[in-house]
Amino acid sequence: MSAPKTALVLSAHAADFVWRCGGAIALHAEMGYEVTVACMSFGERGESARLWKEGKTLDEVKAIRRAEAEAAAEALGVHRLECFDLGDYPLELDRDDKGRLVDLIRQVQPAFMLSHSKYDPYNTDHMYMTQVALECRMIAQAWGHNPGETVLGAPQLYLFEPHQTEQMGWKPDTFLDITPVWEKKRAAMEAMNGQVHLWDYYTRVAQQRANHFKRNSGGMSGGRDCKYAEGFESVFPRTVDAL
Amino acid sequence: MSAPKTALVLSAHAADFVWRCGGAIALHAEMGYEVTVACMSFGERGESARLWKEGKTLDEVKAIRRAEAEAAAEALGVHRLECFDLGDYPLELDRDDKGRLVDLIRQVQPAFMLSHSKYDPYNTDHMYMTQVALECRMIAQAWGHNPGETVLGAPQLYLFEPHQTEQMGWKPDTFLDITPVWEKKRAAMEAMNGQVHLWDYYTRVAQQRANHFKRNSGGMSGGRDCKYAEGFESVFPRTVDAL
Amino acid sequence: MSAPKTALVLSAHAADFVWRCGGAIALHAEMGYEVTVACMSFGERGESARLWKEGKTLDEVKAIRRAEAEAAAEALGVHRLECFDLGDYPLELDRDDKGRLVDLIRQVQPAFMLSHSKYDPYNTDHMYMTQVALECRMIAQAWGHNPGETVLGAPQLYLFEPHQTEQMGWKPDTFLDITPVWEKKRAAMEAMNGQVHLWDYYTRVAQQRANHFKRNSGGMSGGRDCKYAEGFESVFPRTVDAL
Amino acid sequence: MSAPKTALVLSAHAADFVWRCGGAIALHAEMGYEVTVACMSFGERGESARLWKEGKTLDEVKAIRRAEAEAAAEALGVHRLECFDLGDYPLELDRDDKGRLVDLIRQVQPAFMLSHSKYDPYNTDHMYMTQVALECRMIAQAWGHNPGETVLGAPQLYLFEPHQTEQMGWKPDTFLDITPVWEKKRAAMEAMNGQVHLWDYYTRVAQQRANHFKRNSGGMSGGRDCKYAEGFESVFPRTVDAL
Amino acid sequence: MSAPKTALVLSAHAADFVWRCGGAIALHAEMGYEVTVACMSFGERGESARLWKEGKTLDEVKAIRRAEAEAAAEALGVHRLECFDLGDYPLELDRDDKGRLVDLIRQVQPAFMLSHSKYDPYNTDHMYMTQVALECRMIAQAWGHNPGETVLGAPQLYLFEPHQTEQMGWKPDTFLDITPVWEKKRAAMEAMNGQVHLWDYYTRVAQQRANHFKRNSGGMSGGRDCKYAEGFESVFPRTVDAL
Amino acid sequence: MSAPKTALVLSAHAADFVWRCGGAIALHAEMGYEVTVACMSFGERGESARLWKEGKTLDEVKAIRRAEAEAAAEALGVHRLECFDLGDYPLELDRDDKGRLVDLIRQVQPAFMLSHSKYDPYNTDHMYMTQVALECRMIAQAWGHNPGETVLGAPQLYLFEPHQTEQMGWKPDTFLDITPVWEKKRAAMEAMNGQVHLWDYYTRVAQQRANHFKRNSGGMSGGRDCKYAEGFESVFPRTVDAL
Repeated sequence: MSAPKTALVLSAHAADFVWRCGGAIALHAEMGYEVTVACMSFGERGESARLWKEGKTLDEVKAIRRAEAEAAAEALGVHRLECFDLGDYPLELDRDDKGRLVDLIRQVQPAFMLSHSKYDPYNTDHMYMTQVALECRMIAQAWGHNPGETVLGAPQLYLFEPHQTEQMGWKPDTFLDITPVWEKKRAAMEAMNGQVHLWDYYTRVAQQRANHFKRNSGGMSGGRDCKYAEGFESVFPRTVDAL
Repeated sequence: MSAPKTALVLSAHAADFVWRCGGAIALHAEMGYEVTVACMSFGERGESARLWKEGKTLDEVKAIRRAEAEAAAEALGVHRLECFDLGDYPLELDRDDKGRLVDLIRQVQPAFMLSHSKYDPYNTDHMYMTQVALECRMIAQAWGHNPGETVLGAPQLYLFEPHQTEQMGWKPDTFLDITPVWEKKRAAMEAMNGQVHLWDYYTRVAQQRANHFKRNSGGMSGGRDCKYAEGFESVFPRTVDAL
Repeated sequence: MSAPKTALVLSAHAADFVWRCGGAIALHAEMGYEVTVACMSFGERGESARLWKEGKTLDEVKAIRRAEAEAAAEALGVHRLECFDLGDYPLELDRDDKGRLVDLIRQVQPAFMLSHSKYDPYNTDHMYMTQVALECRMIAQAWGHNPGETVLGAPQLYLFEPHQTEQMGWKPDTFLDITPVWEKKRAAMEAMNGQVHLWDYYTRVAQQRANHFKRNSGGMSGGRDCKYAEGFESVFPRTVDAL
Repeated sequence: MSAPKTALVLSAHAADFVWRCGGAIALHAEMGYEVTVACMSFGERGESARLWKEGKTLDEVKAIRRAEAEAAAEALGVHRLECFDLGDYPLELDRDDKGRLVDLIRQVQPAFMLSHSKYDPYNTDHMYMTQVALECRMIAQAWGHNPGETVLGAPQLYLFEPHQTEQMGWKPDTFLDITPVWEKKRAAMEAMNGQVHLWDYYTRVAQQRANHFKRNSGGMSGGRDCKYAEGFESVFPRTVDAL
Repeated sequence: MSAPKTALVLSAHAADFVWRCGGAIALHAEMGYEVTVACMSFGERGESARLWKEGKTLDEVKAIRRAEAEAAAEALGVHRLECFDLGDYPLELDRDDKGRLVDLIRQVQPAFMLSHSKYDPYNTDHMYMTQVALECRMIAQAWGHNPGETVLGAPQLYLFEPHQTEQMGWKPDTFLDITPVWEKKRAAMEAMNGQVHLWDYYTRVAQQRANHFKRNSGGMSGGRDCKYAEGFESVFPRTVDAL
Repeated sequence: MSAPKTALVLSAHAADFVWRCGGAIALHAEMGYEVTVACMSFGERGESARLWKEGKTLDEVKAIRRAEAEAAAEALGVHRLECFDLGDYPLELDRDDKGRLVDLIRQVQPAFMLSHSKYDPYNTDHMYMTQVALECRMIAQAWGHNPGETVLGAPQLYLFEPHQTEQMGWKPDTFLDITPVWEKKRAAMEAMNGQVHLWDYYTRVAQQRANHFKRNSGGMSGGRDCKYAEGFESVFPRTVDAL
């Protein structure tokens, strides 16, 4: 019996993986992929405004965010949730932190990876995460890094959808139909109690992307119906046997 | 029995389809696609220097170039070669010419289309062809254009490799392994007697792209071997059920 | 008493002005602007699929689309709706047509203009419209074009929101709060009976842009509430007395 | 009585705020804004060639540059000049330095911020400053950073004019008429004794930008006269109630 | 005795060659180049506001503009001034006009060509001129265009400086020291009586470019003095025997 | 007797200077330039797969790679090979390392510098090297950095050819004919025993660039023959006395 396929999500803050690629996670989990989600931080300082307004302490905020992330991960069928707990606003990885991330990448040996947009003037943690993703992907490919370990191949890095896409210069080249797992994504979003205002926002995002899926799969003549979709930008070229 | 799949190549000059996507044509022909190639011109004025140096007349040049294109098309397994004979340097399509091209697109109902890069300061015929490809694709999708005909869906438009790629801002996102049909592409190239200097040039292109195929399919760890490849840039996003 | 301020919308097809800047039109009409909308075509061939499926003739399609546009214009408080009736898919303006558009621009003397995105591989009529808008704006500024007429100043050209913004390279730099006139925009959209599927799509667009309005006006700290908004990209720099 | 409006300038080296946005500072100061200028360094190593040629020591260079900056700030009506004294060529901010900058941003609560261009291959301190400006703006917005402090809203970040604009990919979208305060800007520039060669250079810049102001405010028909102007590029979209 | 070197300037309107590359013309003329200037129009409608305000007729405007262009050409040492008289705002070349331009290019056999920026939203004649320049350069290279004539090699196309460079996306990669011929350029500018406001504007442009020349030739350490310069953007790569 | 001209290559890994600019090095060495090559690392971890597969230790790998680099340098006529030995995958320079690089730049006083492309998602060491090159070039120009030393002028920074050029956004603007020194470059490549698969790859690169050299020097009419060439992208504008 061959090993299951795997995928790896690199998320700067605990909730990013839910809004931005929760559908992709759930869909591939249903297909038998083991999906690992690595959250560099809990988004405790920068993405937990409601909790701070309620007077929570840092430890409380982190515990609540961790619990929410775990609940969301469970809803999506995540195989493994790895919380690096490195802090946010700003997120910073030193050489050891990067080494830990490289170790994870090698353990997972992902068929594809997912992370943030290349540019984000609103949230520098996001673009930093992608920069680190590229750096660690490179290190994981090096035969001389921890010689003897299995080196990484050349997995695609998909950039998931940022907020305010046009300001980030993010251009999706791949639309994924997530209709079959929509209820799971919605459930995962609803696990993020501190960001209620985003539940409907990202539901609408999924509906708009479904329209784009339909248009690009044939439009008024042959377009496949689709109720919810997610968009992704590929960093690397694909290698194919047919166009 | 269902109809065979189809593809459509839009080539500004008679030989472009050979150098730039001959492998894709031969490969899909072998897979059972009916591939139609539409040459807007024979490249008679601008891409037949050797013949003019030999003192041929315009009619002779066109006849020779047509014969070469037919031989190349046969070598590649082209289903239908349509020569629009519109002249080159410059290539110009009036409204009727575009109508004729729209008719062809609708007849073929291609699963995907192939044409030139978006920008080409060396050869304005090339970028004009792509502009026309987009315009005619749009017209072919219009329910009110020749009502009653089957309208076009939303086929991908792949931009094949231009000469001096970096000057054209062309960035391949798809590498196609053409090793199985390499001999056919080489034979088709050798049918173009007026451009002998390009035979080896485009053989090397295919070898370099094979290196890129290998790197992007896994590199030093799992990269698939590949001897010859072609690169393409997609204009539109893909719609998929798995990443 | 000074003359009222004016604005001019250049719309390739009859319905574009509704989806893409209906809010801006209604809002400025309420502020006392006289807003002129110039539709180059009725979108009769390319954007009336439902009518063609019902077996309507070209004249019927055009009449229905005209009536819809008029109803939408009335709902929005449009001062003047000018239908050029030049045909679509493709839209083409000859020198006389451009002259007619220049005449209109000079009559209106708009404080600002609105048109399509600069690039649109799905719909070449859209990008052609913007190219013509720039050309005719330039001609309208020429002292030697119909000497004696009042020449045009330097109105801003705002590019309204295209479908699939990221594919068009469209980046909004201005978000306009259209909450006060939302009901008018929705009513105008509902006047477009042939494109029912777009009513909810563009309602969601307005809701998403409202979120962006809120974020960019202060976000979690001071962001102004907004229920519906529209986004625009400016072609020209602004001239100001304060930042 | 409400608090006065505020603005914040982030300047990599002591003199940058003078050449690049001295007019904007003086103009807003006259309008009642309290403008804070934060200089990360004195430009002591990299922008004080004349002083080093005269054989000054590092301390002397810094003292002279500080005195010049103070004189310029006074000429412009700067409310507060904050010298971080972090060194230049290269400028580097560690986590504490960034914390200090975040503190300043929160104290000032600027209506808008000003900093360098995004890219500068001649002067990496400049682009680093802007990167830090975005990072610290983000941190200042985080409810969990020093909980209890007033968090930052979403002030615009204007990028002021770099030297050799085209090489930096800097594109101004806003021209500000600084004619009323020109004498103040000139006086501030003349306070920078070590860079005499730039006085006339930036006077000409202001004259050229005035020409652009005139063109974009109406040109040959209605363009407003303007003798001196400054240009700025906005990082974030504007939120407006009228176009 | 070998034939003198040649250069060719393609100018949309009569005065463009003066402001934008008058120095390059005069300098190369002094070096023995035969410089041909081809003006597609006199700029009679769009760039002669003062004359129209004075009530001149079209014929008068054209005659005056022609005389000014001739005077400027003489001041610069232009070898041949070719006025195509095709009209402006908009400028349009039909197939015959292009043929005439191709003939000229072949006659001149320029070592290099000069024309406008690739993009100009303020003045579509300018970008159209460059598009035509590329098209006609291509036709002139075709062995099958008027067989028997000497075909064109591969001359560089330099794009001279537009107004408001940043708005045009124009990026100079070459600065030319025109100090030795400055008086000639100033004299040529002063021949353009209808655009007095541009004399000082383009004098300042030359002074700023001289500063850039100095910086890029060594700056504070070895930069060559230069009082006046012009900037150019190259379309094509250079071929060299040393870096 | 004047001092010989100099050039400086900044190479992230030991072999980069061979594949990417070995021809330029050999050519300028033959012309009398003293060419210094600075290798930040030996590429020991990331670019020595074969050696690790053979079970070599880190010290062995570094020793072998050093020997190969020295052999290649000798074959090319390198004046001085400076191995910084800073490690790779990732390459990191702290402030002292940068100081050491600045010292070298000042010692060499290069007429021009060579380094990697600005962007490289496959290999972040490469783009980091170029970022450091720009930073250190700036520091070397500062009169206040180690006052008394001879400061750097404004040498061009050429970016040599990366692997998969289109993915890096690298656009060559300069093609250098390296035919006269081809045998030396081939010999240097063959000194890199661990990367045999690249010998033919970069031979083909040189042949393709020779084709581009020929096209851009005149093509079918006057193009100069060339068997091997290298391409470079310039970061800074040139300053010239003739176009």
